[in-house]
Amino acid sequence: MFRKILLLSFVLVIYSNLCNAQMNDSIMLRKIYDQALENGKAYDWLHELCFKIGNRVSGSPQADKAVKWGDSLMRTLGYDSVFLQPCMVPQWWRGPKEKAHFMVGKKKVDVNILALGGSIATPKEGMDAAIVMIDTFDDIDSMMVEACRGKILFINGKMNQKNIRTFQSYGHCVRQRWAGASAAAKKGAIAVVVRSVGTSTDEFPHTGSMGYEENIAQIPACAISTIHADMLEAQLKKHKGDDGAVRFYFNQQCKMLEEKQSYNVVGEIRGSQFPNEIIIVGGHLDSWDVGHGAHDDGAGVVQSMQVLQSFKALGIKPKRTIRAVLFMNEENGGRGGTKYAELAAANKENTIAAIETDAGGFSPQGFSFENDSLRAFKVRSYKNLFEPYQLFSWNYSGGGADINHLRNQGTLLIGLVPDSQRYFDIHHTAADTFDKVNKRELHLGAAAMTGLVYLMSEYGF
Amino acid sequence: MFRKILLLSFVLVIYSNLCNAQMNDSIMLRKIYDQALENGKAYDWLHELCFKIGNRVSGSPQADKAVKWGDSLMRTLGYDSVFLQPCMVPQWWRGPKEKAHFMVGKKKVDVNILALGGSIATPKEGMDAAIVMIDTFDDIDSMMVEACRGKILFINGKMNQKNIRTFQSYGHCVRQRWAGASAAAKKGAIAVVVRSVGTSTDEFPHTGSMGYEENIAQIPACAISTIHADMLEAQLKKHKGDDGAVRFYFNQQCKMLEEKQSYNVVGEIRGSQFPNEIIIVGGHLDSWDVGHGAHDDGAGVVQSMQVLQSFKALGIKPKRTIRAVLFMNEENGGRGGTKYAELAAANKENTIAAIETDAGGFSPQGFSFENDSLRAFKVRSYKNLFEPYQLFSWNYSGGGADINHLRNQGTLLIGLVPDSQRYFDIHHTAADTFDKVNKRELHLGAAAMTGLVYLMSEYGF
Repeated sequence: MFRKILLLSFVLVIYSNLCNAQMNDSIMLRKIYDQALENGKAYDWLHELCFKIGNRVSGSPQADKAVKWGDSLMRTLGYDSVFLQPCMVPQWWRGPKEKAHFMVGKKKVDVNILALGGSIATPKEGMDAAIVMIDTFDDIDSMMVEACRGKILFINGKMNQKNIRTFQSYGHCVRQRWAGASAAAKKGAIAVVVRSVGTSTDEFPHTGSMGYEENIAQIPACAISTIHADMLEAQLKKHKGDDGAVRFYFNQQCKMLEEKQSYNVVGEIRGSQFPNEIIIVGGHLDSWDVGHGAHDDGAGVVQSMQVLQSFKALGIKPKRTIRAVLFMNEENGGRGGTKYAELAAANKENTIAAIETDAGGFSPQGFSFENDSLRAFKVRSYKNLFEPYQLFSWNYSGGGADINHLRNQGTLLIGLVPDSQRYFDIHHTAADTFDKVNKRELHLGAAAMTGLVYLMSEYGF
Repeated sequence: MFRKILLLSFVLVIYSNLCNAQMNDSIMLRKIYDQALENGKAYDWLHELCFKIGNRVSGSPQADKAVKWGDSLMRTLGYDSVFLQPCMVPQWWRGPKEKAHFMVGKKKVDVNILALGGSIATPKEGMDAAIVMIDTFDDIDSMMVEACRGKILFINGKMNQKNIRTFQSYGHCVRQRWAGASAAAKKGAIAVVVRSVGTSTDEFPHTGSMGYEENIAQIPACAISTIHADMLEAQLKKHKGDDGAVRFYFNQQCKMLEEKQSYNVVGEIRGSQFPNEIIIVGGHLDSWDVGHGAHDDGAGVVQSMQVLQSFKALGIKPKRTIRAVLFMNEENGGRGGTKYAELAAANKENTIAAIETDAGGFSPQGFSFENDSLRAFKVRSYKNLFEPYQLFSWNYSGGGADINHLRNQGTLLIGLVPDSQRYFDIHHTAADTFDKVNKRELHLGAAAMTGLVYLMSEYGF
């Protein structure tokens, strides 16, 4: 009997502690959200980054400025330490504004293009040749060399509008941008024009990185805006069978410069109980060289700093060490992510979890995990705490490009999942500007991450 | 034994039918979403409404045009019938652009205001008086008449940023706009200026309807932009205790004209099996007289028509009658909603369910029901079918202003629930323009409603 009572008491104590913990966690999450929504600084920081610095491709003077800005800003925020991690980055320079048009007989139609990041230039006088079209990247395999040789290939793949999450469609369609040039060169094409990988029909071409395969001729590659892609497509369909009927001209004078030193910027609040267990939250400081890089990834940068700022503002001393990492060179090399992981391994750091925010500063919907590891299972058990904040999507679509390098260090990789409907309207375009970011949405994303970091810091694994 | 086998077979048949139904429903929902995302017309229709007609306050020539536009458009879509429901609407005319400033000593600060809908004018030469401030509408009760008499009262209530759903904050704060004038008049104020009921800090004042209590002096009422409210607040705080230190001037020449005939526009596809059971989906055709009325409620208008359009495009013959209702005069009278319910009662119509879309054309998150009736219970059981489309919020925050009049007719009242973060940035302002609407978000909302209408039409109650 006594043992039964003892057991019962034991169970009751455990249960009551669990209930208390759950209640205290709820209260803390509410405080975190209140703080971010009422007094979050991320939006103001983003304004500074967008208007005082602007876009900031790796190696550019603006990227240097952004490093200084992140470093100085974090030094004012009272963190335990702020430090830089040097890394070499590639430097690709777009050159003067591209020019392009197509001709149907004597009719000339000017079109908007952007050279793809990493592409070589056209000759100085530009390139002028017959253009042929394929509907999707997959069609390239069955293309006859005769149909392509000496011509410009237009890869007209469209993002699938049917997927509810636009990232799924992006993942499929982006191959034409990344791999289109070498695939076209194998068929004898002298240049490649890809339809912009985007969801809306407008005049803004979407740039982004591309690569050349080894031992394949390098040909110039550019993206054409979706509205102009539609016009080009219509003419090519109209003149189907008459391969020389439509000619394309473009001129881009981009080039690779020498590699240059740049930096990741890291801010840290040291854990009060388990300082050697590290949780990171990060976005990337570089952007493409058009627009403001506001959603991609200014938003992620300021949200990551907001997480630490919220801990400071609320006076929460985390049990484990938390770090905001502003990665360099996500867009065209991923050198910052690689370097971070390399240093973490060299320093034998125990990075227990990493959250990346690089999918836009839109309304957060949940988190994504790389797989259903035991750690992911534990973190997913916090889901119910986030239901009042409408974070219903806890799925397995991976972490993110910068933190993925930590995979072999046993780190739980997590991505913030925002609403994805608008992201690929403006991704890598001149339209990715500050006015597209909503303050509440941005701060809700920061609050979501702060909440999750808090719970992981309290309970560990 | 035989009976057991019989029972088991029976259970298996039921179960298998249920599984088939569920599977067929899933397939149909996928088709509905595919159709809306790939070939939805709502966005193009909204473009027409915004750019060919523009904003359309009740009684205005543009509202007349909008009625004709909705009627003509639906007549081209092959519905079984399209008809107008005449109703008298109030006509409030803003007059020439308002002027306003405040003075601190000799320093003059121009500010942006909008007269509130329904307000009387200032004298022709405007009004110029000392201004006093209260922080929230609730503070008015404890205000001394002496502090207010002969002055302009500034009600500076701010929307609570902490609520995750912004409609909650709106519901609380909007009282200062609706009831501020009479409350101020009771304290002897000669005019009322309210802080715009909005979530962002910017230069756009938010108009909206207000009412005068009977037997209380009518005083002019306007809303001031949030950025100018901040400036005014700062000066009033600085000069606290010195009641005459800050003076406010404004001039608005708005007035009520005679009531005028207008119309609800209704399109119908008759049910193939239960034509007398009616499901309606609707938004309101009128808007405020600034901006485009794009989110409020052009979005709802075109989404409602899209629901019927999707049925036609997919060749679905609904078992029950479905109607798109474009209500008139939601903003300042609700006469269209009242008239619709009145006619439905007079015609002894059986409106089994009504969905209203009047919360912006943003990413849909779910549906809201008025209460947990048996009908709501049945419809909520469809929730799992919508999880692939990220509709996770099925709550009880009510139907909508236009369909609420059907409450006493046994109708299940449902509201489409979109993401609410951006809505009150632009609500009732010159910034509620077409460019703020995202095509995919708009069409996802239409698809969500089409799916729910389909299921209710198939299975009834």
